[in-house]
Amino acid sequence: MKPTAALVAQAYAALATGRREEIDRYWSADMRWLVPGHHPLAGWYLGLDAFLGFMGQVAAQSGSSFRMENVTTLVNDEYTADVTRNLGTKAGHASDAREPYTALDIDVIHLLRWRDGKVIEGRGAIFGDGTARFDQFWAPVNREGHRELTPREAS
Amino acid sequence: MKPTAALVAQAYAALATGRREEIDRYWSADMRWLVPGHHPLAGWYLGLDAFLGFMGQVAAQSGSSFRMENVTTLVNDEYTADVTRNLGTKAGHASDAREPYTALDIDVIHLLRWRDGKVIEGRGAIFGDGTARFDQFWAPVNREGHRELTPREAS
Amino acid sequence: MKPTAALVAQAYAALATGRREEIDRYWSADMRWLVPGHHPLAGWYLGLDAFLGFMGQVAAQSGSSFRMENVTTLVNDEYTADVTRNLGTKAGHASDAREPYTALDIDVIHLLRWRDGKVIEGRGAIFGDGTARFDQFWAPVNREGHRELTPREAS
Amino acid sequence: MKPTAALVAQAYAALATGRREEIDRYWSADMRWLVPGHHPLAGWYLGLDAFLGFMGQVAAQSGSSFRMENVTTLVNDEYTADVTRNLGTKAGHASDAREPYTALDIDVIHLLRWRDGKVIEGRGAIFGDGTARFDQFWAPVNREGHRELTPREAS
Repeated sequence: MKPTAALVAQAYAALATGRREEIDRYWSADMRWLVPGHHPLAGWYLGLDAFLGFMGQVAAQSGSSFRMENVTTLVNDEYTADVTRNLGTKAGHASDAREPYTALDIDVIHLLRWRDGKVIEGRGAIFGDGTARFDQFWAPVNREGHRELTPREAS
Repeated sequence: MKPTAALVAQAYAALATGRREEIDRYWSADMRWLVPGHHPLAGWYLGLDAFLGFMGQVAAQSGSSFRMENVTTLVNDEYTADVTRNLGTKAGHASDAREPYTALDIDVIHLLRWRDGKVIEGRGAIFGDGTARFDQFWAPVNREGHRELTPREAS
Repeated sequence: MKPTAALVAQAYAALATGRREEIDRYWSADMRWLVPGHHPLAGWYLGLDAFLGFMGQVAAQSGSSFRMENVTTLVNDEYTADVTRNLGTKAGHASDAREPYTALDIDVIHLLRWRDGKVIEGRGAIFGDGTARFDQFWAPVNREGHRELTPREAS
Repeated sequence: MKPTAALVAQAYAALATGRREEIDRYWSADMRWLVPGHHPLAGWYLGLDAFLGFMGQVAAQSGSSFRMENVTTLVNDEYTADVTRNLGTKAGHASDAREPYTALDIDVIHLLRWRDGKVIEGRGAIFGDGTARFDQFWAPVNREGHRELTPREAS
């Protein structure tokens, strides 16, 4: 079963529902995901539970403002690559913020590997100098160096 | 005319020949290319001449050691994405160097946009924390902060 | 009461004892400290308790290997600046590791502001490209992008 | 001859005149200077000529807008450390720009080593996350990744 652009769209739509049975139809329980950069959320997430935990952090720390706008999707027999513009604002900041410490606006590509109709691996990569801005966005500090409580620290 | 993985391989092979008439068969004269990061070689190169100038810098500064190993290639009607492992050592350093300031070993994806069988735009992006290492590799300094002459400065 | 190099040495020695009454003799309860970079431990720590919490994290994440070797100390009526070489290895890694993700070896200067014989503010800054390496050292990932559990996450 | 805060002020004032005989009174011909970060201007400059060449680049690339505001100066028998707020805007950009790619506003400390009344070594270091912004400011790209011609490239 070869992945298609339509399947990729369905997989992300399932993820957005937050319903585990929907998610399980497209994302393998033993999948892993690599977040680019060296900020607190960077690195490999091993297993679907860990990946969903990461997605929960993204939602919490961005006040649910994080979103991906699809630009195009590519495929071959084993992989898909979806190009997106990712946008978001740090929780507690105005939606028209523009500083990298509080506002995210980056061009991204996600390379997904599939087996039996499910994602078994995903890796994100960022175009231009967006990785530096991604590191600043997820840093626990703002431009003035003040530490902003993350949901994990606040709990 | 839809791009294929075979066409992508031919385009890179043409680039490697260094022969302009071969290159012109696959790369549009008005193409542009975006190099990730914020190091001296980063940013958009406008036009095939500028892109070839960048590739010449890569060869010169790596003592011709820079190489790309293809992992997989994806396509759709307008774009291709080739995943590679990029390796190289800074000119004048031992080939078994491992420090980010002198040795490069990163996982990369290049998103190419095609029109009439030729590349009109390319953008590279790097997985994991490779962008930080890419910035360090192309920086004009080594780990101790000593400025290393680049071909441009040396000329 | 003007600060002296000897006073600076006594203040750090008190810090190293870990005994709060010793520490309170040199460090004001309402002091604040700015850690450079954009890694998980970066930013302002407000109050002596927060600063000591940071120092505890440094000890825990470095397996108590973190140390500062004094090079020289400068003073004026209100400030001191101590220059140090800071060394450490990430907890769980060999002491001869050299990669920025696991080994730290940076040249640092700490600017302390004093009032009535006690530190009321401290800010660190790093020479050369050490800030990039400091960001990599405290990142939650290693060179391969695998997330390493920090004491906070492990607890 | 022990350095003083007044001597530091005189040394920088001499530098600002641009007159070599004035500069030679305070800066040793074989001095060296370390610029922090990994941007195109980073690293050690060996010799007064090289250091003055760096200062010329700073003036040219900032449209002569670069300036240092002294906050305090510390001394001991061999070293001085002057704390400054450094400000500047990239040549060709509005003076009210705020993005790290076009506007600089960082807190800096310069550690100078003296011998016989002259500076023989200087090293700068930046507080907070200013080093990342310094790297972005001197990068040859703007936020959108477009390469901006530097005086060196334009010549």
